[in-house]
Amino acid sequence: MFDASALRHHLATAHDLNASATVLEWDQETYMPDGGEDARAHQVATLRRLAHEHFASDTTSTLLARAEAETPADPLVVVARRDFDRATLLPPRLVAETAEAVARAKSAWRRARETNTFSVFAPHLERLVALNVERANLAGFADTPYDALLDLYEPGLTARVLDGVLGDLRRDLVPIVEALAAQPRPDDAFLRARYPTETQWTFTLDVLRDVGFDFQRGRQDLSAHPFTTSFAPADVRLTTRVDEHFFPTAFFGTLHEAGHGLYEQGIDEHYARTLLAEGTSLGMHESQSRLWENQVGRSRAFWAHYLPQAQRRFPDALAGVSLDAFYRAVNAVEPSPIRVEADEVTYNLHIMLRTDLERALVEGRLAVADLPEAWNEAYRDVLNLVPGTDALGVLQDVHWSLGTFGYFPTYTLGTLMSAQLFDAAEDALGPMEGYVERGDFLPLLGWMREHVHRYGRAKSAAAILLDATGQSLDAAPWLAYIRTKYGALYPGAGL
Amino acid sequence: MFDASALRHHLATAHDLNASATVLEWDQETYMPDGGEDARAHQVATLRRLAHEHFASDTTSTLLARAEAETPADPLVVVARRDFDRATLLPPRLVAETAEAVARAKSAWRRARETNTFSVFAPHLERLVALNVERANLAGFADTPYDALLDLYEPGLTARVLDGVLGDLRRDLVPIVEALAAQPRPDDAFLRARYPTETQWTFTLDVLRDVGFDFQRGRQDLSAHPFTTSFAPADVRLTTRVDEHFFPTAFFGTLHEAGHGLYEQGIDEHYARTLLAEGTSLGMHESQSRLWENQVGRSRAFWAHYLPQAQRRFPDALAGVSLDAFYRAVNAVEPSPIRVEADEVTYNLHIMLRTDLERALVEGRLAVADLPEAWNEAYRDVLNLVPGTDALGVLQDVHWSLGTFGYFPTYTLGTLMSAQLFDAAEDALGPMEGYVERGDFLPLLGWMREHVHRYGRAKSAAAILLDATGQSLDAAPWLAYIRTKYGALYPGAGL
Repeated sequence: MFDASALRHHLATAHDLNASATVLEWDQETYMPDGGEDARAHQVATLRRLAHEHFASDTTSTLLARAEAETPADPLVVVARRDFDRATLLPPRLVAETAEAVARAKSAWRRARETNTFSVFAPHLERLVALNVERANLAGFADTPYDALLDLYEPGLTARVLDGVLGDLRRDLVPIVEALAAQPRPDDAFLRARYPTETQWTFTLDVLRDVGFDFQRGRQDLSAHPFTTSFAPADVRLTTRVDEHFFPTAFFGTLHEAGHGLYEQGIDEHYARTLLAEGTSLGMHESQSRLWENQVGRSRAFWAHYLPQAQRRFPDALAGVSLDAFYRAVNAVEPSPIRVEADEVTYNLHIMLRTDLERALVEGRLAVADLPEAWNEAYRDVLNLVPGTDALGVLQDVHWSLGTFGYFPTYTLGTLMSAQLFDAAEDALGPMEGYVERGDFLPLLGWMREHVHRYGRAKSAAAILLDATGQSLDAAPWLAYIRTKYGALYPGAGL
Repeated sequence: MFDASALRHHLATAHDLNASATVLEWDQETYMPDGGEDARAHQVATLRRLAHEHFASDTTSTLLARAEAETPADPLVVVARRDFDRATLLPPRLVAETAEAVARAKSAWRRARETNTFSVFAPHLERLVALNVERANLAGFADTPYDALLDLYEPGLTARVLDGVLGDLRRDLVPIVEALAAQPRPDDAFLRARYPTETQWTFTLDVLRDVGFDFQRGRQDLSAHPFTTSFAPADVRLTTRVDEHFFPTAFFGTLHEAGHGLYEQGIDEHYARTLLAEGTSLGMHESQSRLWENQVGRSRAFWAHYLPQAQRRFPDALAGVSLDAFYRAVNAVEPSPIRVEADEVTYNLHIMLRTDLERALVEGRLAVADLPEAWNEAYRDVLNLVPGTDALGVLQDVHWSLGTFGYFPTYTLGTLMSAQLFDAAEDALGPMEGYVERGDFLPLLGWMREHVHRYGRAKSAAAILLDATGQSLDAAPWLAYIRTKYGALYPGAGL
């Protein structure tokens, strides 16, 4: 009898090639000297090309068909089928055209942002929208081409489901933000004092250890833009960056990446060298990073534990700062034009308006030429501000220049799922506050490992959520969390 | 008309795969967490396997034959033929058996060394000798199977040529070492004072910059065993290690690796992504590392320049140490049982006796069972000492456990060539002393670039040496260098 082992063995080569390319990309962002750029581009391109050729081959097709006949429910077989169909969906012409369009768009976007000239980027954006629509048409969809694109980043998610949750979210969140924005901003000047780089770095390593990141099976390095990547569940790399004059950058950046890293380290080792050895979706991944950054890391209990040691580490910056003052400062809410600098409350408004706009582009309801105005209008409507320039507005994010449409909503899905999962963990373990105040993070991590991490891609995000929480995707738990937390922080807002 | 460009294009894929494997190996030695070991072994094995399959393919054979018909003298074609014949020489059975034998021998050697039990390693060593003889027989040779093995590491070198130079060297060097060993050992206790790690690290980076290592096109990191590796001429990685209580480890280690790194950075950029983008032989590579470590780095002029700043950096360790005292200390000669700790004078005796022994093994004149005794006898004869244990004797080096026989002599070839090249550079530029005293290393580097580095593998070591120095391989220049330098350092020795 045939089993999936022949398929598994065959696919391991493609897996090794892709994992190797990922090592090279990690090195490129952390240690590679500038001179290495040309050679590195060739090396990564060769590895990715060979991985694709190996994976999208007749051999895979044959082995996959045999495996489906014998063990159709084997998660590896299911995921391999999904990936194989995706890898072979596009004719080589479209793959090549997309790669070229992205390469051009990336540098056009950089120039456009530097010179604050949207028109430099516009024709490239048009091209990328058209290519995405072509892709969606090839993939097929029920209601809108946006469905086919969402499925790339959050398998199984549809625009219809998304509409429902985002609608709920918007209805409640916009008035919450309005109420909070009307309150006086807490004093957070001390977060901008001097925090010596080396001490910050050590603090991030210590907190990583505390939350359960395993340095035998991973490490943290510096990079210009923080990210997490995994070469195997036992080799997970985080990066952070340190701003000597803004404490939250490194500390919360590290906690955010820790969430991603703990997920990858928690995947069942049996899935190593297979397609299953990854987080199941971008949204589920983001649920883990948001959970550790916000639900845990920006809680009062967390700082009840860490503020005393932060004060020992940074006596000049934090002497005399009370727990309440610190807690308020790291949870200041203020509408601002830049997504990546947004607080946890306003963040999702940034996502919602991007989701609306990219969907309108893909559905042909919005022309690229009209995008900057639509962007500014949306910011005025939703956040009551207008970015000063397109560089600070429609050109701020890299995503569209990479040809990714349907990615943005996964940030909000992650936010919502983080609250659902946190609530479920509390149902099982009791209130987190007590654990967190003692610096005892392992029960929470253990629960996430058990219900989320270990499955890798062997279980869908929707199934994980349902089994772990008894619910499907729902905005209410996160909204309740926000109301409780910020109601207490801003008693005058009347949440 | 066909040119080598189709061949070059085809081989670039294998080159990228090998370069990528090298990146992964570098990461493994520098940053990889222990947990990454399993996955990394798979990744590297996959990349090397695919590189080999791609290179040793019928396509390569066809393209190579066409290129040879059209441009037989193209260095790429010549080198590709040599590598292709080597890659396809061994039947797959022998490749697999060798790989397995090496894997077993490596761990047996480690166990044998830890427990000081040669017999644990002996059967594995026998097997590796037999496999090397089988390989030599397949490759063919004129005088001795050792010829075929030498050719793997120093293309074109024969046992007959080696016999000539090593004979000259031994005749003169043994009495020199005897005379030096009879002299009182200079005081070098201050080299074992405390040298703070961070300050040593900064010093090594500064000296790397001074000698012309380009940090836009390379970097230095820490590793347990120093090495140099290159992913491209514009991305060259050095490593060093720091011993807080022994100054020479990091400093001279860095200078040694700098020699290798400058060579790799100096290779013509046009050779990037081809078989030519490497040093031409192990001996020529070692000539560069020895030159910077010894001829330059252990010269009096060098320390006339660096001692004052070393004293500023390490005031506690070096206060009151005179230039002469420092110069004597870093050039102390003393026969000792361990090769990697040997001074530059006795070092070559360690190599010569290993060369004799491995050749005798390969030629069937020495049985593995008799090797420990032969080793100890040779040390008694040549260095007038007997290692206390086999772990400190015959088991000290990793080379044989990796199945490499014919590698050791390249260390001595490098030493000899370093003196020949240094002399030629002085003939062209005038005495180096003046430059070095001013910290002006670029004329010497420029000369090496021009006459050695830029060619990569496009010119053989013998041709480089002949064109650059007007000589073939010769022990006399190095012996003259040693007599002059150590005659002055040890006036009582009567050299």
